[in-house]
Parts: sequence; structure tokens; C-alpha cells
Amino acid sequence: MGRIIIKNISIGDELLIGQVINTNTAWLGEQLSSAGFQLHSALTVGDSEQAILAALQSCMDADLVLVTGGLGPTADDITKPTVCKFFGTELEFCQAAYDNVVSIFNRRGFPMSERNRGQAMLPRLCQYILNTYGTAPCMWLEKNGVVFAFMPGVPFEMKGIFTDELLPRIKKRFHSVPYAKRVIMTTGIGESFLADKIKDWEDALPEFLSLAYLPQHGMVRLRLSGQHEDADFLNETLENEVEKLKNMISEYIFALQDQPIERTVFDLLIYRGMTFASAESCTGGNIAHVITLIPGSSEVFKGTAVTYATPMKTKVLGVPAETIEKHGVVSREVVEGMATGVRDLMEADFGVATTGVAGPSGGTEENPVGTVWIGVASVQGVVSKRFNFGKDRENVINRATIMAYEMLRQQILSNCPSPVGATEQQAGPCS
Amino acid sequence: MGRIIIKNISIGDELLIGQVINTNTAWLGEQLSSAGFQLHSALTVGDSEQAILAALQSCMDADLVLVTGGLGPTADDITKPTVCKFFGTELEFCQAAYDNVVSIFNRRGFPMSERNRGQAMLPRLCQYILNTYGTAPCMWLEKNGVVFAFMPGVPFEMKGIFTDELLPRIKKRFHSVPYAKRVIMTTGIGESFLADKIKDWEDALPEFLSLAYLPQHGMVRLRLSGQHEDADFLNETLENEVEKLKNMISEYIFALQDQPIERTVFDLLIYRGMTFASAESCTGGNIAHVITLIPGSSEVFKGTAVTYATPMKTKVLGVPAETIEKHGVVSREVVEGMATGVRDLMEADFGVATTGVAGPSGGTEENPVGTVWIGVASVQGVVSKRFNFGKDRENVINRATIMAYEMLRQQILSNCPSPVGATEQQAGPCS
Repeated sequence: MGRIIIKNISIGDELLIGQVINTNTAWLGEQLSSAGFQLHSALTVGDSEQAILAALQSCMDADLVLVTGGLGPTADDITKPTVCKFFGTELEFCQAAYDNVVSIFNRRGFPMSERNRGQAMLPRLCQYILNTYGTAPCMWLEKNGVVFAFMPGVPFEMKGIFTDELLPRIKKRFHSVPYAKRVIMTTGIGESFLADKIKDWEDALPEFLSLAYLPQHGMVRLRLSGQHEDADFLNETLENEVEKLKNMISEYIFALQDQPIERTVFDLLIYRGMTFASAESCTGGNIAHVITLIPGSSEVFKGTAVTYATPMKTKVLGVPAETIEKHGVVSREVVEGMATGVRDLMEADFGVATTGVAGPSGGTEENPVGTVWIGVASVQGVVSKRFNFGKDRENVINRATIMAYEMLRQQILSNCPSPVGATEQQAGPCS
Repeated sequence: MGRIIIKNISIGDELLIGQVINTNTAWLGEQLSSAGFQLHSALTVGDSEQAILAALQSCMDADLVLVTGGLGPTADDITKPTVCKFFGTELEFCQAAYDNVVSIFNRRGFPMSERNRGQAMLPRLCQYILNTYGTAPCMWLEKNGVVFAFMPGVPFEMKGIFTDELLPRIKKRFHSVPYAKRVIMTTGIGESFLADKIKDWEDALPEFLSLAYLPQHGMVRLRLSGQHEDADFLNETLENEVEKLKNMISEYIFALQDQPIERTVFDLLIYRGMTFASAESCTGGNIAHVITLIPGSSEVFKGTAVTYATPMKTKVLGVPAETIEKHGVVSREVVEGMATGVRDLMEADFGVATTGVAGPSGGTEENPVGTVWIGVASVQGVVSKRFNFGKDRENVINRATIMAYEMLRQQILSNCPSPVGATEQQAGPCS
């Protein structure tokens, strides 16, 4: 049985003028993949009859079309009549939809408006699907064998109704092919070098597996995925291939699942009962910010001193003023002093420090914009390294943050390779 | 002259399986609107010849097609030959593209691979546009009067090249209808209450203007925008309407342009030659992170002490251990001690502090998840306030950060209402 073609249409002016970022398509894509289907393409159009009709027509070569948006109380003036036109039907009152709108207003304790009453007028030919998450209806229609499912565009309503109602119907109606993926997180190697290094392995992958490179801020995320009628065989093959890959590039891998590098550091530290603190100049608190997004980070993270003003490097972190005077604020000596200083101040096992020129101004011939020194202090002493992360301020901050965590990860592993008598499930491949 | 039709194509499997959310389309839509153009529709397809060809073909009714993605060193194996097929041309070596790849590798201090060399192979018919942000090329091609511009998919590269190179060319080539907008930033009032307050004004707006409400993290951004062939009349009308709006809701407005609240605080402080520092517990460095994204922030920002571990509040900030013991770490006394402590430590004019329960665990009956104390210290003393920002960790951090800046803004204005003999253009409406 062949693959079915699934297309997605998103309706809404707000998506085309940049007011709202479309997150529904990515979410639907992920859900479909996990369920053994594949999203073929996704089209976004504005709230106009002409655009919607053209979009629906362009999907007549699909098996299933998932339409989101255009069904709120102010937008459905255009969408619903257009749907009727396309399917050759007309609006009629739907008692079940009406009861749902009433019950939602009762639950929220608000009075209903005439506009909300209009939400119960639905295309006569449609199969109404209950949306318990909001007042907009969910509708299932068919034309020449193509199934169209219309959902509200509000993400939490769309997600709820897709999970509860649509996915089960889709699974019943269409044949799916088991899908599986593995994500391998790497850092410290560029996309092209990585590709060269694993070319032979990649070329020899079975037909049904494919590899994607997803670079971002100095990391490359590798995604190995595929579909196969035999799910066990698929998973077994994936495991084998990942094993081979690990042997080729283990030094660059920081996680065998889709997670940021600070999560790997968190896991490594939790597992060892160790802590770190950061002293940040050019990263401006971002090292602290990303770790504190993780619930429970207070177990491993003591705190940060962002010493943005130069004299604070002396006062708060104890970097001697003469050192700063002699070597300049962006230097090996200063970053090492900061790393050691914050480790002492915060009484942590590791101290991580950054000092650099995030730009756009402040660069010199010796230290152009993008220059960043990163240092990590531990009981074994302090290591440091100089980088250039380019000229975009936000990018410099992000790349320096990731590299600081990578250097910290290396130091954790070198200080304390593996807790005695333990396996390290969470901590990635580097046991 | 009629409106031109602009379509967007995004290429990449990662967008269809949900691994990456497509933010490029929204960004392009916003940029186009601001420049007096309109994005008609946006199509996302995977990395396959068939899908890309069909997508390009489906845009032959447009005037301009903006294509993003599919040009990285590993993905262009498919995209570039497909482009050649569509335009009836073949790949040839482009010296300018090659020089750019070389210069980027030199700057980063990495050696080049054969694969990167391949990035300089471009469709013969294309006009090469320099991308100084990365190694992927930007290409301009035409077919039967339709312009196709191909850009890399990495957002920061795409944004840079669109702004620097493409938009000027598009403006030169196509007619735009003058577009203008005003953004009014508010905080301290919910969306529906705001809507009720300004309903009469909104209903009386001229046909060609429209108002959008964009709520996020405790702020509501209002966007009043429109298009009109007479640009002067459009701008005059907008000014008048904003003036009316200001009179209705001045106490909630912190800026009359689209900027985050930390930017308003930055402007207020720069103008007064004053500084601040932060002591962060539950916000975990985010107050520092957002201000340091602003170039030149070292002029107003002295630094942060993120005292995530409780004893550090005593050691680094000098909050007496007895105070913490007696009142608990999430209390008025502690946040005021932190604000005062960091102001002294960092020798700043203002000290801002946060302590709270970001969740998901750690809540108590007295201080449930979402409870945050915020304090601001100045020469006039210290003020503090208790909030509850709900139960989502990231949301708590974001809302607490914004509220900390709002409280800081109020204190700056109350300490130093307006510099002598000065007008305050930059500092928003609150002079």
C-alpha cells in the first residue's frame, strides 16, 4: 500500500503580515510523523474567498487535507461560506454545535453574543466533530475521495481536538507506515566537516532511512529517521546505525536525544552531585538564563555574577586591577581570573567565565567584534580558549553560551569521568 | 498600478516533521508589510526535487517569489540542481561566491572542505547576491517575468541578506502602496479591558486603518496600521489617532514604538546618565540577559548577581541570614535586602531584585508556584511588591522580568522625573 499524501492549509491574515508565527504546521507535522504519516506540504493563505478557494483546489491531489484557522467568531464570515461554495453545499443550523457554544459560555460565566450563535451554522454536508476546547467547530468533509478536516487555528484548541478526535479517525481511515527517529546532538565540528567525516556511513544507509543536518549556533543536530512496515526491524536498524555513528564521531556528541547542551551539563552534574557558577561579561547572564529554565536547576547551579562594568570584575570577582590594566579586559588572564573568582565566591565545583566583544561596536584590531574568551575553573585548575563568533550580537551571545557549556562539559568529564559503580543513562554517550 | 503578488516558499523536511518551527515566513511578512508590500501566500515543501519543482511551478502566477532554505552545504545537493532544471540552466563556478566562502572560513579560522567549495557552484543564469552572513549563496533569477529570489534558511543569515540586499532591489523593481504603522506598548492592563476602554475610538477609525491587539507576557502591544497612496495623509491620520489614544490610556503606555520595556528603561537611564544593577533569584539572569542584548548596554547596566543558592544571598549581597531564616527566602524583607545589597555592591543608581517560585515544584501554601517578590532600591529607599505569575516556569520568568523593568521605570521617573532643560524624545510618552 502506498504512502498517502497529506497537506496542510493554514488560514489567517495574521500569519502573512508577521503578527503571529505559525506553530500549528510544525506541531501537526510532528504528530503525523510520530503516528506513521507524513506531511507533504503546507500552505498559508489569507482570509479571502479567492485565496481559500485556490488553496482548497490545490489540494485535490492529496488524500487528506488538514485545514486550520478561519473559524473564530470574527473570521468565519469568510471561511464557512467559502467552504460551502467549494463543496457545493449551504450553511444550516447544527444543534450539537449550538449546544457546545452554549455550554462553553456557561462554563466561562460570560453572556453569549449573536456572533457566537452564528458559530453553530455549518455546511450541510459536513460531519460535525465536537470541539470541547472552544466555540469554533471542527468539520470533516469529502470531495472526490479527498478528505478535508477543518480545525480552529488557536493552537491549544487545535491540539486538543486533533489529539482527541481527528487522529483516531485518520488512523482508522488511512494506512500508516511505522516511523521512528533518533536525534544525535553534536558540537565542536562544522556541518560540512561532519558531513565529510560520516559520508561513507551516510551513503551506506538503508534506503528507508534518511539523515538530516540541522545546524544552529555552533551545534549540529543530526536526525536519522525513517519508515518501515516492520517497526521492530526499523528500530533495530536505527539502533545499529546510531551505534556505528557513535564510534565515528563520539568526541563531538553531547546527547543522544533532542536536548540543549545545558541539559546535558545539568544531567552530568546532578549525577555527580556537583555544582557550577558563572561569571559573565559578554554573555550578559545568558549562561544563567538557559540553565534556570530547567526545573530543578538550583540543584546544580549556584549563581552568576554578570560583571558588565569592568571595575566589578575586580570588586566582585577579585580579578586584580593590574591584570585587567596589563592584559586588557578581553584576555586569557582576565577570563581565567573571573572563572576562578566566581568558583570561589559561589563555592561551586566549577566556575565558567566569558569576556569578549559582542558588538556591534567595541572591536579593536587585536580583538575584533565577535572575539570571546571562555574559561572554566575546577579543582584541577583553569582552562581557557579564544574564539571568534562573527558579527551579529545575538548570535555571538548564543554561540558563546553554547561553547561555554561545551567547555564545562569537557571539564566535568575530565575531572570526574564517571561516578564509581554507576552507569550514566542520562548523560549521553560520554561515559 | 495594482498590488503585486508576492509568494513565499520555504524548503526543508525539518519544517514538515516539526523539528523546526518556520519563523522566516512571519518575519518576511512583517518586513514586506512595513515596506508597503503584501505577502499573498506561503508554501512549505520538503527537500525533494518533485516537491520543489511543483512549488516553483505553483508560483508562476506571482510577480515575486521569495524562497528560503535548501542552500546549506548538505541540502543544496537537491535544491540547486532542481533550480537549474526549473530555469533551464546548469551549475557553473562563481568566483564571487567562492571568495565569500573563503573569506568566511578565514574569519572563523576553520579550514574549508570540498563541500564548501561546492557552495560556489551556482545556476549559470542567476544573478549572485553576496551573503556576508554565511556560506550559502543568495540568488536572483527570472522566468517569464516572475522574479525568484533564493535565500538561505538560517534565520539570521536570511534576515541580514534580505535587509541589506534584497529589499532595496525589490523596492527598486516593484511599486508599493505606502504603508505606515504605529505601535503602542502598554502594560498593567489586560487585553479585554483595554479593548473595552478604547472601543468607541476603535469603532470610529477610518476604513483604511486597522488595529491589532498583540498580548504577550503581561504586556499588550497595539498596532495601528494601514495603507494609502497618499503617504503624508496616512501618516497625519495615524498621528492624530495615536494622539487621541494617548489621552485615553496614557498611564498604561510605556513606549510609542515597537520595543521591549528594557529598551525604554535603557533610554531613560542613558538620558539621565544613570545606571542599574540586578540581583536575581527566580528570574535566573534573564533581567541581565535582555538588557545586554541591547548594544551599548554597558553604559547603563553595571551587572547582575544571580544568587540562585540561598547562602549566596548572604555572602554576595549581604542579606542577613537571620532575615532569610525569619521571613523565608520569598519575602518582602529578602527582596528589599537583595535590591539594596546589589545597588551597593555594584555601585549603581538603582538596584532591582527578584525572588520567587518559578515552579513547577517548590510551591507552598503561603507562596504557591508563580509567587514573585520584586524590589527596586534607589537613593530614595526601596519599594517592593508581590505578584503571582501563574504556573508555567518560562512564563513566570518572562512576566517577572517585564514587571521588574516596569517597576524600575516607575522608580526612574519618580526619582528623576525629567532632566533639567531637556525634552525626552526617546523615553516614550512619560515625560
